[in-house]
Amino acid sequence: MTDYFDQTGSAAREASRLMAAASTGMKNQALASIAHRIDATREAIASANQRDLDAGREKGLGAALLDRLLLTPERIDAMIEGLHQVAALPDPVGSVSELDYRTSGIQLGKMRVPLGVIGIIYESRPNVTVDAAALCLKSGNACILRGGSEAFHSNMAIAAAVTSGLQSAGLPVAAVSVLETTDRALVDRMIQSPEYVDVIVPRGGRGLIERISNNARVPVIKHLDGNCHVYVDDLADLNMARAITVNGKTHRYGVCNATESLLVAQAVAAEFLPAVAAALQAAGVELRGCEQTRQLIDAVEASEDDWGTEYLGPILSVRVVAGIDEAIEHINCYGSGHTDAIVTRDYSRSRKFLAAVDSSSVMVNASTRFADGFEYGLGAEIGISTDKIHARGPVGLEGLTSQKWIVFGEGQIRQ
Amino acid sequence: MTDYFDQTGSAAREASRLMAAASTGMKNQALASIAHRIDATREAIASANQRDLDAGREKGLGAALLDRLLLTPERIDAMIEGLHQVAALPDPVGSVSELDYRTSGIQLGKMRVPLGVIGIIYESRPNVTVDAAALCLKSGNACILRGGSEAFHSNMAIAAAVTSGLQSAGLPVAAVSVLETTDRALVDRMIQSPEYVDVIVPRGGRGLIERISNNARVPVIKHLDGNCHVYVDDLADLNMARAITVNGKTHRYGVCNATESLLVAQAVAAEFLPAVAAALQAAGVELRGCEQTRQLIDAVEASEDDWGTEYLGPILSVRVVAGIDEAIEHINCYGSGHTDAIVTRDYSRSRKFLAAVDSSSVMVNASTRFADGFEYGLGAEIGISTDKIHARGPVGLEGLTSQKWIVFGEGQIRQ
Repeated sequence: MTDYFDQTGSAAREASRLMAAASTGMKNQALASIAHRIDATREAIASANQRDLDAGREKGLGAALLDRLLLTPERIDAMIEGLHQVAALPDPVGSVSELDYRTSGIQLGKMRVPLGVIGIIYESRPNVTVDAAALCLKSGNACILRGGSEAFHSNMAIAAAVTSGLQSAGLPVAAVSVLETTDRALVDRMIQSPEYVDVIVPRGGRGLIERISNNARVPVIKHLDGNCHVYVDDLADLNMARAITVNGKTHRYGVCNATESLLVAQAVAAEFLPAVAAALQAAGVELRGCEQTRQLIDAVEASEDDWGTEYLGPILSVRVVAGIDEAIEHINCYGSGHTDAIVTRDYSRSRKFLAAVDSSSVMVNASTRFADGFEYGLGAEIGISTDKIHARGPVGLEGLTSQKWIVFGEGQIRQ
Repeated sequence: MTDYFDQTGSAAREASRLMAAASTGMKNQALASIAHRIDATREAIASANQRDLDAGREKGLGAALLDRLLLTPERIDAMIEGLHQVAALPDPVGSVSELDYRTSGIQLGKMRVPLGVIGIIYESRPNVTVDAAALCLKSGNACILRGGSEAFHSNMAIAAAVTSGLQSAGLPVAAVSVLETTDRALVDRMIQSPEYVDVIVPRGGRGLIERISNNARVPVIKHLDGNCHVYVDDLADLNMARAITVNGKTHRYGVCNATESLLVAQAVAAEFLPAVAAALQAAGVELRGCEQTRQLIDAVEASEDDWGTEYLGPILSVRVVAGIDEAIEHINCYGSGHTDAIVTRDYSRSRKFLAAVDSSSVMVNASTRFADGFEYGLGAEIGISTDKIHARGPVGLEGLTSQKWIVFGEGQIRQ
């Protein structure tokens, strides 16, 4: 007995074989065709989006959610532009590295290959449908996309453009399957079906990601909290430290690479804290400080919970520490392994911080806001992994591939 | 309420921080000290091993299991030699690659770092205790080792030498924890405790690995079946094809990179099969063939099950296929993603096979027996991964690490 999910899964598995062998030219042509179809069906996409927005308003969705759901003409332009950008990226598939001879005479190397079928589970942003499809397609994978129910009609309209683009490039339409139902049971099937899906990328809130991680039998590339720290060392340039702190906190509040916690070396706390507090408070940021902090500046009392909290808003926790060792200990204890920075002039401390902080991005004298796929030159990202295996930090095309070993011989046998 | 497992887990987590920062010199000194302690306590190890062997015989363990359990003086020598070999390998930790400037002015690179705490669950071979400890130690990880109950006393004697070696090098003894009980419930705790364990490596039979994979909440690096194929193309050098087939099948039977299935292009089947069958049958190999095969040589009728079976013994399944496309399809359908080889003189077919076969090692004109960590120059291996994410094929020191992003700035902030 096969059902809708089995049919979708086995079609995706089959399509993944063809996608793995698809040429760079065909994949780029498909991306261009999808961009063209989205442009040509703007009206259909906008009216499907209107249906979702109307239903969302009726259901009483909040303003933030409705905004994420909304596809303005500019956002549709951005989707199209994103497709062209992914087409312009180098194709990772088939790239061979470290092709060296062994003493047995075989020549051994590593070839970059697609993972197979990627399952992506995401919430209400319909543009993720296009971004995810583009990255999976370019990296030679098939994908099964399961978007949020609020964006169902928008996703279906986008899916039609994707299907038509794949067809016109001669690629299998099952290379991108947007699930045609929002039945929750299908999510459980997806994450428990290693026969159809090679890896799951959940994009959404902590609740979604934890539920998926706890129940998955397929490997998951997680993107959990970004509780990012800046540690201002006593040997820091304090003007630089202030600029980095203010930028990390106030450049954008709702992003995972925003600075959420400031650690300051005791020896410079009295000089540094009043200056940075003035700048932050002028920008409307609430400060929550430890006892020593509150002796130096006006701040709410920080609770134990504050140290582990990703505020995603105009709040910053502030703690005075004895020095770099206590800062590293604090970060490895309360941090989320996302992005953490030190500001220092000292050579050895910069090396120590880089080596000892166990996060996906560790920075010296730079704003935590740099931790994303565009700034890192990946061109686009499917998420920022806080996992330790396979891919850490921004995950672009390379994170959607793995490397297999290849051997060239001339008849060698094992002695 | 903390208990034995919580204490072991949190001590390992703490030790992993120190191990991540341990210098190459200290780690190598620890490896040398462990080798020295094993040499100095040979008698204690041998008598502990004798206890296990006596208990095993009493319990009626089979001869193969008793042999795996046995520590002869030569096997103890090999353990010591293995420690020296791992000490001689380059230290992967801290190696920085691709350190390039971005347009923002930040300099971005990747630093190789330990995974943290590795949980290894294995069966009765006591030498795994030393091999696994050595690889985890050199790669800057802490590990929790849970060996089979049959080898309990041998493992405890080896653990004493490891502990003493770590101590004399000034490294935390919790860097290598050999569980002091074989309580099965601890395995479930290990695989469900991401707070203590970053990755699980199960080494053992299919049953063990599937049970762990199905219940784990910690990522698992799996080593499943090696159902390895040789495809003999119609454009092959048939003498080479015969040598590669016979070597792959008969060099050693019980290993995961042994050839288990032979695919032969129809156009050369009548010429090739009788010659290879004579050589294999002379070596005592039973052949199980498809209908076309059985018209050409004397072979048992192969069932559908045979195509998916890893015999680990003197049996080979044989199938005649139309050509390379059918061979690739057969391998991707029935293979286990371990190691598969083509024998051909044709340039394009060699490229096609390399690209299309979805296995951890894909070979042209070489024996499948080459797929192991020593032959690949990894120095040693913790297993051969049949997973697609993180590490494929032989997993050595590099597979026990990941890469984090590092950023050097001079005060850059995001515009």
